[in-house]
Amino acid sequence: MESAQLTQMEVNNTKIPPTEAGNRGLVFAVNGEKFEVAITDHSTTLLQFLRSHTRFKSPKLGCGEGGCGACVVVLSKYNPVLDRVEDFSVSSCLTLVCSVDGCSITTSEGLGNSKDGFHPIHERFAGFHASQCGYCTPGMCMSFFSALAKADKTNRPEPPPGFSKLTVSEAEKSIAGNLCRCTGYRPIADACKSFAADVDLEDLGINSFWRKGEPKEVKLRRLPSYTPDVRFNNYPEFLRGRSKSAKSLHFQNNSWYSPTTLEELESLLNSNATGDDMRIVVGNTGMGYYKELGNYNRYIDLRHVPELSMIRKNHQGIEIGAAVTISKVIEFLKEEGQVNSSSDGKQVFKKIADHMEKIASGFIRNSASIGGNLVMAQRKNFPSDIATVLLAVGSIVSITTGYNHERLTLEEFLARPPMDSRSLLFSVQIPFMEPKGNATSIASDSNLVFETYRAAPRPLGNALPYLNAAFLAVVSPHVKGVLINNIQLAFGAYGTKHAIRANKVEDYLFGKILSVNVLYEAVKLVKVAVVPDFGTSHAAYRTSLAATFLFQFLSPFINVGAAISGGLSDGFTGSLQEDSSRICNGSSIGQLTNSTSLSSAKQEVTSSREYYPVGEPMLKSGATIQASGEAQYVDDIPSPPNCLHGSFIYSTKPLARVKGVDLISNNQLSGVAALISYKDIPERGENVGSVAMLGFEPLFADDLTRCAGEPIALVVAEKQKSADLAANSALVKYDTENLDPPILTVEEAVERSSFFEVPAFLYPKQVGDFSKGMAEADYTILSAEIKLRSQYHFYMETQTALAVPDEDNCIVVHTSTQCPEYAHRTIAKCLGIPEHNVRVITRRVGGGFGGKAMRAIPVSIINIQIKVSVNVFVLCED
Amino acid sequence: MESAQLTQMEVNNTKIPPTEAGNRGLVFAVNGEKFEVAITDHSTTLLQFLRSHTRFKSPKLGCGEGGCGACVVVLSKYNPVLDRVEDFSVSSCLTLVCSVDGCSITTSEGLGNSKDGFHPIHERFAGFHASQCGYCTPGMCMSFFSALAKADKTNRPEPPPGFSKLTVSEAEKSIAGNLCRCTGYRPIADACKSFAADVDLEDLGINSFWRKGEPKEVKLRRLPSYTPDVRFNNYPEFLRGRSKSAKSLHFQNNSWYSPTTLEELESLLNSNATGDDMRIVVGNTGMGYYKELGNYNRYIDLRHVPELSMIRKNHQGIEIGAAVTISKVIEFLKEEGQVNSSSDGKQVFKKIADHMEKIASGFIRNSASIGGNLVMAQRKNFPSDIATVLLAVGSIVSITTGYNHERLTLEEFLARPPMDSRSLLFSVQIPFMEPKGNATSIASDSNLVFETYRAAPRPLGNALPYLNAAFLAVVSPHVKGVLINNIQLAFGAYGTKHAIRANKVEDYLFGKILSVNVLYEAVKLVKVAVVPDFGTSHAAYRTSLAATFLFQFLSPFINVGAAISGGLSDGFTGSLQEDSSRICNGSSIGQLTNSTSLSSAKQEVTSSREYYPVGEPMLKSGATIQASGEAQYVDDIPSPPNCLHGSFIYSTKPLARVKGVDLISNNQLSGVAALISYKDIPERGENVGSVAMLGFEPLFADDLTRCAGEPIALVVAEKQKSADLAANSALVKYDTENLDPPILTVEEAVERSSFFEVPAFLYPKQVGDFSKGMAEADYTILSAEIKLRSQYHFYMETQTALAVPDEDNCIVVHTSTQCPEYAHRTIAKCLGIPEHNVRVITRRVGGGFGGKAMRAIPVSIINIQIKVSVNVFVLCED
Ligand SMILES: Cc1cc2nc3c(=O)[nH]c(=O)nc-3n(C[C@H](O)[C@H](O)[C@H](O)COP(=O)(O)OP(=O)(O)OC[C@H]3O[C@@H](n4cnc5c(N)ncnc54)[C@H](O)[C@@H]3O)c2cc1C
Ligand SMILES: Cc1cc2nc3c(=O)[nH]c(=O)nc-3n(C[C@H](O)[C@H](O)[C@H](O)COP(=O)(O)OP(=O)(O)OC[C@H]3O[C@@H](n4cnc5c(N)ncnc54)[C@H](O)[C@@H]3O)c2cc1C
Ligand code: FES
Ligand code: FES
Ligand code: FES
Ligand code: FES
Repeated sequence: MESAQLTQMEVNNTKIPPTEAGNRGLVFAVNGEKFEVAITDHSTTLLQFLRSHTRFKSPKLGCGEGGCGACVVVLSKYNPVLDRVEDFSVSSCLTLVCSVDGCSITTSEGLGNSKDGFHPIHERFAGFHASQCGYCTPGMCMSFFSALAKADKTNRPEPPPGFSKLTVSEAEKSIAGNLCRCTGYRPIADACKSFAADVDLEDLGINSFWRKGEPKEVKLRRLPSYTPDVRFNNYPEFLRGRSKSAKSLHFQNNSWYSPTTLEELESLLNSNATGDDMRIVVGNTGMGYYKELGNYNRYIDLRHVPELSMIRKNHQGIEIGAAVTISKVIEFLKEEGQVNSSSDGKQVFKKIADHMEKIASGFIRNSASIGGNLVMAQRKNFPSDIATVLLAVGSIVSITTGYNHERLTLEEFLARPPMDSRSLLFSVQIPFMEPKGNATSIASDSNLVFETYRAAPRPLGNALPYLNAAFLAVVSPHVKGVLINNIQLAFGAYGTKHAIRANKVEDYLFGKILSVNVLYEAVKLVKVAVVPDFGTSHAAYRTSLAATFLFQFLSPFINVGAAISGGLSDGFTGSLQEDSSRICNGSSIGQLTNSTSLSSAKQEVTSSREYYPVGEPMLKSGATIQASGEAQYVDDIPSPPNCLHGSFIYSTKPLARVKGVDLISNNQLSGVAALISYKDIPERGENVGSVAMLGFEPLFADDLTRCAGEPIALVVAEKQKSADLAANSALVKYDTENLDPPILTVEEAVERSSFFEVPAFLYPKQVGDFSKGMAEADYTILSAEIKLRSQYHFYMETQTALAVPDEDNCIVVHTSTQCPEYAHRTIAKCLGIPEHNVRVITRRVGGGFGGKAMRAIPVSIINIQIKVSVNVFVLCED
Repeated sequence: MESAQLTQMEVNNTKIPPTEAGNRGLVFAVNGEKFEVAITDHSTTLLQFLRSHTRFKSPKLGCGEGGCGACVVVLSKYNPVLDRVEDFSVSSCLTLVCSVDGCSITTSEGLGNSKDGFHPIHERFAGFHASQCGYCTPGMCMSFFSALAKADKTNRPEPPPGFSKLTVSEAEKSIAGNLCRCTGYRPIADACKSFAADVDLEDLGINSFWRKGEPKEVKLRRLPSYTPDVRFNNYPEFLRGRSKSAKSLHFQNNSWYSPTTLEELESLLNSNATGDDMRIVVGNTGMGYYKELGNYNRYIDLRHVPELSMIRKNHQGIEIGAAVTISKVIEFLKEEGQVNSSSDGKQVFKKIADHMEKIASGFIRNSASIGGNLVMAQRKNFPSDIATVLLAVGSIVSITTGYNHERLTLEEFLARPPMDSRSLLFSVQIPFMEPKGNATSIASDSNLVFETYRAAPRPLGNALPYLNAAFLAVVSPHVKGVLINNIQLAFGAYGTKHAIRANKVEDYLFGKILSVNVLYEAVKLVKVAVVPDFGTSHAAYRTSLAATFLFQFLSPFINVGAAISGGLSDGFTGSLQEDSSRICNGSSIGQLTNSTSLSSAKQEVTSSREYYPVGEPMLKSGATIQASGEAQYVDDIPSPPNCLHGSFIYSTKPLARVKGVDLISNNQLSGVAALISYKDIPERGENVGSVAMLGFEPLFADDLTRCAGEPIALVVAEKQKSADLAANSALVKYDTENLDPPILTVEEAVERSSFFEVPAFLYPKQVGDFSKGMAEADYTILSAEIKLRSQYHFYMETQTALAVPDEDNCIVVHTSTQCPEYAHRTIAKCLGIPEHNVRVITRRVGGGFGGKAMRAIPVSIINIQIKVSVNVFVLCED
């Protein structure tokens, strides 16, 4: 059959209709395969596309807002300026699929898989027990892989055979934005560090490759081998040349414009056609914070206008195009910070870069633009770090409104009314800060001191700050101490419209010689200047943090005249660092300048051979396919044809009568199939949604809601998005007339004698003799109060179930539950069908932590519920 | 939640894109649900639509050519002339979905189901053990249901409570066209007869309701109750008014026209736009015989032109519009035959109707038009019954070519060169045949004798004839015997271009008095006149049948002068009937005038209680859902997304080298994904397709084909239709140079010493003493030869498998096999994967009879094969 020939050699992997004549479609590659598609809904994310239109399901939906890393993929993109392909990690849950035109996407399956052979990353993740539930693993692998590939592409010295050019520190940082709820990170870090040229293998934790103390050669031999992937090049030939041309994707009434010149961009912004339903877009990561579910008719992608994507240096400073990504800014500033690194001004750049590294995570910074950040700060009061830091150094922005170009200070910019959707932030300029130069005209013996601060729930980034601050001072030695020649104090993100300069404090300090008293006065003034808006959480804490930061910044200048002359900034930085790490260790918040906290962990595990092989470090079955992303979770099961998707409408009132639910009529709500409530429970069924220790709980609120967050109804639609939109925009009419107020605390319950009956087996049992013990104790507690707040289980895989009707009134439910047996019982009871008509399949659970024991059941039942009413397949996500 | 409201109340059940602006879409109902769709491929059948775009999978694909009844559904259609809705059964495999616009379709699920309650038909089918494999059952139920509903809508006297107005004979006839391979029909007939008003319950066979001899009241009580469904009305309100207007469905370049006036029709036929890729269509049943896979650009549906759908009587005869269905013609002729039933002419109508009832089956005749039949006879040499019968009575046809209208005799019409695709058969006229009238100007003492004959593999219809004939004679008493005043002898379907008049025989007989000698001469002449074309099967048999028929017709006239005067036609008919039933019983072919052969069957089954409950007539588990069509066969499993479909290319040479396979490049072949042959067997796998007693057999022909029909390659495409088209049109290049001729018979094998090694356990074992037995025998066989021809298993469900790749290189194969264990082993071996990576699921088999023991395996493997190469789901049908 030598001449066997195919009329069409290329398998079209997607059902999305191909481009119609006159409209250019998207072309991109996923793991080397070509995809040519016409996207009609421009708000479709890359993750949605991959998961529903390809067989690559390793990118998972965890948070959908850039915060967890489960969806990370590596994007390879042609950079026309440098004429080379750049690879970087991105969160596919925020990246719009239209913006990957001409790009190549690599997912974990693309690195390796059970058929073509696994990648050593997969094998080492498995061997180091770095994958438990596995839901975070493909994203981890991709974040790490992008760092690995990047390091091996550098011209660093060759690493020892079997290792990468990557360092241990880079290995750790690479996964900083990826959350894992199961492993505690150590095994993951170990797996990653095992590739590093500078790793001490003996330092790595328990694994299935070697036992502690085995010789290094043995260890090396046992590690799945790695050869630096210098040829990692996932940019297929068919993409070359494509990405150079301008493009506009028009589909039906919607368009996606990618102007390539400023003129084009301006005329687009000013055209009548682009009304208010137009959206300027760069990385689209803003969507992670402002989840706008609405659709825009027109998208304007700024990334193809060269002027907006460039960083230029002129004599005044560094001019950064608004579309430049935070990662690129960091890279540039770090390089700037190194050149002639002795000067104080360079230190400023380095510190700005350091601060920026705490923004979100690598995979966000790789696509998030600096302009997008500042616009969010200006327009939507976003608690930006960039605004604060750049405010302190007196940055200048260029904006365009209509055909009108303006340059103004960042401070002026932030104070203006929110810019409209047609205004463009063009660039931001960070002025040079030479202490002896004329930019800030400083006397010759003076020194520039610059520091940034950030307190957030997590020290290493990936959490918005409670407060951030950046302080710039020009100080000079003085006989009485240290003289403040100039000082700029910026605070932000503390629950205010935008970052501010603490002018009153600055004015007070200007020209002063620092003393305890001066500092005390300044701190008092700060407490008046930094006041969160009404309703901000932890308000007092934030204000006192502001004072602390200023104290930290200024206190070293009291009585340290000598130090100043001996190289001020470094000395101070050193002592500051110590301080801050102390703060950090003490309170687990605050800032950490160098993040090497993991590297030195030690863990000794002794295992006895008494119960051999129990206690042996065995490879977890399935760990490798969890890493390669081939492991199938409920949501990875391909939706059957005619599958409907459900979205809950939750109660917002803890105790109220539900008078009605109205879906807002809207053309985006097309495809809504049904609205299901307790009234749709089949005749022989019961309104039960879960079985808990205290008995069955209802599936839906019936006449009364029992708590806020209780499901009231379920919207069922052809697409998950339509269901979500409909559920989110639904109007529930409540009525609380003549109802007692809800019981929200234990105290209220006690007061109103509202108790659950505790089953006998749960009664507390007497242990020992209480009175005797108390009598014998050295100290006795006379009175104490402990309050336990609720805690979120935070499984990475959300509650999901797929119900497939089977013949003879049976139902097969794939559900991510920890207790399939409870689900089974409850489903049958709810539907009023025999238990043998219900089959519950739980292959694996993407994390549960107790949260999928009882609470996974309603989701499952709902599915069946729908089946009864609509008789189609339903995939339901909570 | 009183005011809960839906923005879109109607669930759109289909993914077919809705009508675009300017084009009218189809609207129809399936089991009361509204479907609104735009069909772009007008050759889509109703069956394809139902099975792939709805959840109603009870209509099964058995033969796809109108021959088995597995696909039967009930169509409810508004008749604008009578202003009422008519319900009738049709084969959905031939009905084009575009032609059901405005109709309502009822499938077995629509009668009842496990959720809403079963229909008594379902329950009685189950209780009478009338569903074994169950594949034929939903179609059976629908055929029977249409008869039941029809009978109960008549104004016959009220039946006894619990029964229908239907008669036992109607019950039997209702399922005449539905094949069943498992039950032997008796239980099915019993289930159907149990509804009949005139049934003798004691006559019905074994069932799970009662034991023989139990009192009638008990029996009646135990039968699932039936109330005549007078209100069966499955024509939803939303269809009313729709079907009255003219319609043209245009989609892209293709159109479906339904002209409503003759002018419109003519201008359509004559427009330049409608080229040769135009197709006139009425019932589309012609497709059952001439399987044209090609697509037509334009379809013209004749059924909305009133003139073509009417039967009119004028003074010359009965004028039947070409689009009138055979069923309507039968109904009309039967009524005509009854009016003043004493006249001979009326008898002619009745006999034509009787003959027509043997054409195909009810569900075909309900949509097949008389014009379609005659055009197929004229244009394509179709072995028509209608042409022969109407030829004998001297029918006249009206045709239209361009704007030119012509009337000509059927004889002239048939003799013309094939009419082109723009010519229209307008109507056919059956002239009145009053023996004493002037139409054939017969003397006053003469009698009209008319008889039709038909020999076919099955006596009751649903099989094309070996020969058919119709004879009309005017005879009168004469002193010497019977005088033939006039005679018209038509023969057809015997392997000739078209039906003919045996003119030489007629001429010879004209004016003769019948005698043995005359008859003998006539028979000799018939044998010269009725000669099948070269290559026709059973040629000599057909010719001798012709002679037999003439003999049967004429022999009663020899020496029966007396009978003639005493009412000729009836007397003769009576004696002829006896004759023919004798013939029929003797040879199992020939004609059967009244088909009540089943009614009188008796069966005594005694069961002992020794092994109770073994031997008890238990309800087969799942029989009821088999009847309602909810039972899921492999092909009923909804195709997963991105499912590919496969179609085999079979060898046409028993022994040849395969040099290449070329797929014909063709825009209809879009969506072909791959061509797979033995070269695609994975490296560690083996080219094995089935394991039989003699070991593994190959999956694909490799260098040499081993038999005709051996799979050479598999075309994989996005749609089954594209795969079938590509496979059917593929060009295989063979080379037989230097190859021995293939061994096709046992004799050749013996001669060339080509033997299989018979495994020891299969050796024939000596039983008794052969020589002794022969010596003692009264008669000895000195020499004998037995030849066993091959026999087709004829399972109703074709070979089908669905392979779904699972994680970690596993595969789940749903296959309709009798031996899942063999499939399992072979699949693993073929793919070179461990057996534990393969899961074979066989839920039920739609008939196997040994044919799905070994032979189902290749289909399964192929599927996986594809998975390995293309990595998608594959559904494969053989
Ligand atoms: C998980 C997560 C954590 C984060 N943590 C931090 C943090 O700790 N500190 C911090 O400072 N930021 C943080 N951010 C914010 C992040 O920096 C911004 O989302 C990002 O910089 C926005 O850039 P973008 O290119 O993605 O903007 P987009 O999302 O594309 O756009 C954002 C908005 O700005 C508009 N816009 C964008 N560019 C322009 C322009 N040039 N002219 C006019 N309008 C424009 C858009 O229309 C849109 O309304 C975080 C974000 C995420 C997702
Ligand atoms: C299972 C089966 C068994 C059968 N058994 C028998 C049998 O035993 N004896 C027998 O005689 N027949 C038999 N038939 C044939 C059957 O009678 C014809 O298929 C049917 O009558 C055709 O009518 P239709 O309306 O379905 O034609 P269509 O399939 O719609 O059309 C058939 C052909 O005729 C053309 N055509 C139709 N009407 C006209 C017109 N008015 N003017 C010009 N062209 C026209 C069409 O373009 C097409 O080419 C059998 C058919 C099936 C499927
Ligand atoms: S799903 Fe994208 S980062 Fe969480
Ligand atoms: S293994 Fe990381 S979240 Fe479960
Ligand atoms: S499948 Fe339609 S009659 Fe056989
Ligand atoms: S039960 Fe009728 S074909 Fe099997």
